[in-house]
Amino acid sequence: MLIVGAGYHSENLRKEYQKTCNQACRKASEILKQGGNAVDAVEKAIIELENSPLSNAGYGSNLTWDGTVECDASLMNGQTLHFGACGAVSNVWNPITLAKNLCIKQCDSLSLGRVPPCILTGQGARSWAQRMGLEIVDDHKMISARAFRNFKHCKRKLKKYSIQNDVKFSPLDTVGAICVDINGVVAAGASSGGVSLKHEGRVGQAASFGSGVWALMSRDGIKSSVASCTSGCGEHLIRTQLAKNTAESLFESPSPTESLDKCLKKNFLHSPFLWDVPERLCGALALRHDPQTGDGEVLWGHTTKTMCVGYMSSETDRPKCIISHLPPNVEPGHKAVVSGHPFKIAIQESPVIQWEVAESNCNGYLS
Amino acid sequence: MLIVGAGYHSENLRKEYQKTCNQACRKASEILKQGGNAVDAVEKAIIELENSPLSNAGYGSNLTWDGTVECDASLMNGQTLHFGACGAVSNVWNPITLAKNLCIKQCDSLSLGRVPPCILTGQGARSWAQRMGLEIVDDHKMISARAFRNFKHCKRKLKKYSIQNDVKFSPLDTVGAICVDINGVVAAGASSGGVSLKHEGRVGQAASFGSGVWALMSRDGIKSSVASCTSGCGEHLIRTQLAKNTAESLFESPSPTESLDKCLKKNFLHSPFLWDVPERLCGALALRHDPQTGDGEVLWGHTTKTMCVGYMSSETDRPKCIISHLPPNVEPGHKAVVSGHPFKIAIQESPVIQWEVAESNCNGYLS
Repeated sequence: MLIVGAGYHSENLRKEYQKTCNQACRKASEILKQGGNAVDAVEKAIIELENSPLSNAGYGSNLTWDGTVECDASLMNGQTLHFGACGAVSNVWNPITLAKNLCIKQCDSLSLGRVPPCILTGQGARSWAQRMGLEIVDDHKMISARAFRNFKHCKRKLKKYSIQNDVKFSPLDTVGAICVDINGVVAAGASSGGVSLKHEGRVGQAASFGSGVWALMSRDGIKSSVASCTSGCGEHLIRTQLAKNTAESLFESPSPTESLDKCLKKNFLHSPFLWDVPERLCGALALRHDPQTGDGEVLWGHTTKTMCVGYMSSETDRPKCIISHLPPNVEPGHKAVVSGHPFKIAIQESPVIQWEVAESNCNGYLS
Repeated sequence: MLIVGAGYHSENLRKEYQKTCNQACRKASEILKQGGNAVDAVEKAIIELENSPLSNAGYGSNLTWDGTVECDASLMNGQTLHFGACGAVSNVWNPITLAKNLCIKQCDSLSLGRVPPCILTGQGARSWAQRMGLEIVDDHKMISARAFRNFKHCKRKLKKYSIQNDVKFSPLDTVGAICVDINGVVAAGASSGGVSLKHEGRVGQAASFGSGVWALMSRDGIKSSVASCTSGCGEHLIRTQLAKNTAESLFESPSPTESLDKCLKKNFLHSPFLWDVPERLCGALALRHDPQTGDGEVLWGHTTKTMCVGYMSSETDRPKCIISHLPPNVEPGHKAVVSGHPFKIAIQESPVIQWEVAESNCNGYLS
């Protein structure tokens, strides 16, 4: 089962958004149908979203103040609990692939007792990606016509209004994906170009642990596997660690939609960490799955006006894609709308997780 | 009241370490005695530690694989709950000052509804620092003779042993400071040069939210103000979010030393996030203060062989500085030693914190 999401801002482009989400679902489902794992499926879904000029992730990302593209992305594996992230990285065609590779490499042993990096930023992230053989492109190849027009438009606006004003653009068209595979492994990924005109070197939630993605498999005394990813203003999602809080809230109650609703209220809309934020904009995808019964739910919630969500079970032929709206008359940033869809996946072999202190070797972790 | 800490590795340099910690305590206490705030005191203490060639922070930091210095630093204000961090930044003489400025600037309003960055990395962090008027120095000025010798030594070792081997160096000589001021405001800061031979662009716990520092003032239903900072292997401290977990554990029990001990066991030594880490090395400083009674404790704990800790009340003339040791025959990375010291600070005016949604303006937050 897979769920993907992307910010959505233009009714005119509705069909394009839905087509992209559908395509992301299909590509990831192919992986799952072939017995592939959740990490690869999440990567595949996000690659589709990054490659679309509509999303603010990878190609077509918002431009920085200096007119360049700098991307954040991260991936968490709910089985190994490893996390990989790249921040403010340029020239890497698919930042999510870089994040995935960093996550996988967490298993490696380096000489002199050194530990593989889990977060790489800037030029160092690019040179690491290059050495790993990932696709590196010229600066201008990351810039879409739409992003460039938007950049010019914003710069013009700034010339006119040098101080705070009412012309705002939403920073929320980032993308995310969550998946549970046939072995019950959950994974979550996120990718973002960050807010338009951001400062060079700025790192947002999509490269911060606990903020952009979370995935945790069922283990000792915890019945369900959970995962989540978030979009919104990076600084606010970092402060509230919304991905971790969202995923963990799903343990709490028999009703996951209710849990998600409560979580968005408690940990975002009414969070003490956002006391100075008048408009609290976020979106979250989440997934809960009980490996014993096979029952699960995909969930989404947002305080933004709209969010584009797609999901697909590997047992069906068609993805489902919807544009979720806040009720009319509800001011964005003050209330959340939450929804979900049940699914069932019988796990081939119920995973048992060993918690013994192991040598740094990820093989054999799932026994 | 102020507590500072630094990794400690050489019995030969014991006096030097203690002198540096003493000096850091004195400088920060001067700020507090003059009625200065916790944020400025923490910055001042860490500047002293960064400027020392003994610490792996600021000048004298470990060199990266490419022979450069790249620093991480962060600061959290327990009153505003704002966080500022710089990661993998070169040429900034005092990274903690950059982190403090980013933290303070969280209050600013930017045009077009943009939000001030809370985490800046690499060249972007340096250019921001330069624009703020912070001291920028040439590459070689950040490199101490000791760090350069160590770099050469490690590179030679790597030539000899190309694979994993027993020659390890500790990544733990980073620095941190926590403070509570006369208004009851708590703040925490950390600064680190990262592990020797780290990859360019790598970001560690000292620039990650929840991992390197935490500070939370007494508010609605929470009796005590708490704060903490951590040192150790960045990747492990990120996974375990040790600073946040440490500070929050101090709410739990009437005995803060016991709480810290339990926390280091539960959230680090026995953490599911470190299942693949055979040797679990960390150090933590913590502070708890009840603004109603004035009673507080400074605390420290570590699973490393040693840790250098200094603390000073602004009501006394002399700092106290100790080298804390694991008991003999205890293997580092498997058990923790925990200790603390009580203090009393009568708060001039008990702070009341307003949680209403406020416009982005940090003035008037403390009423």
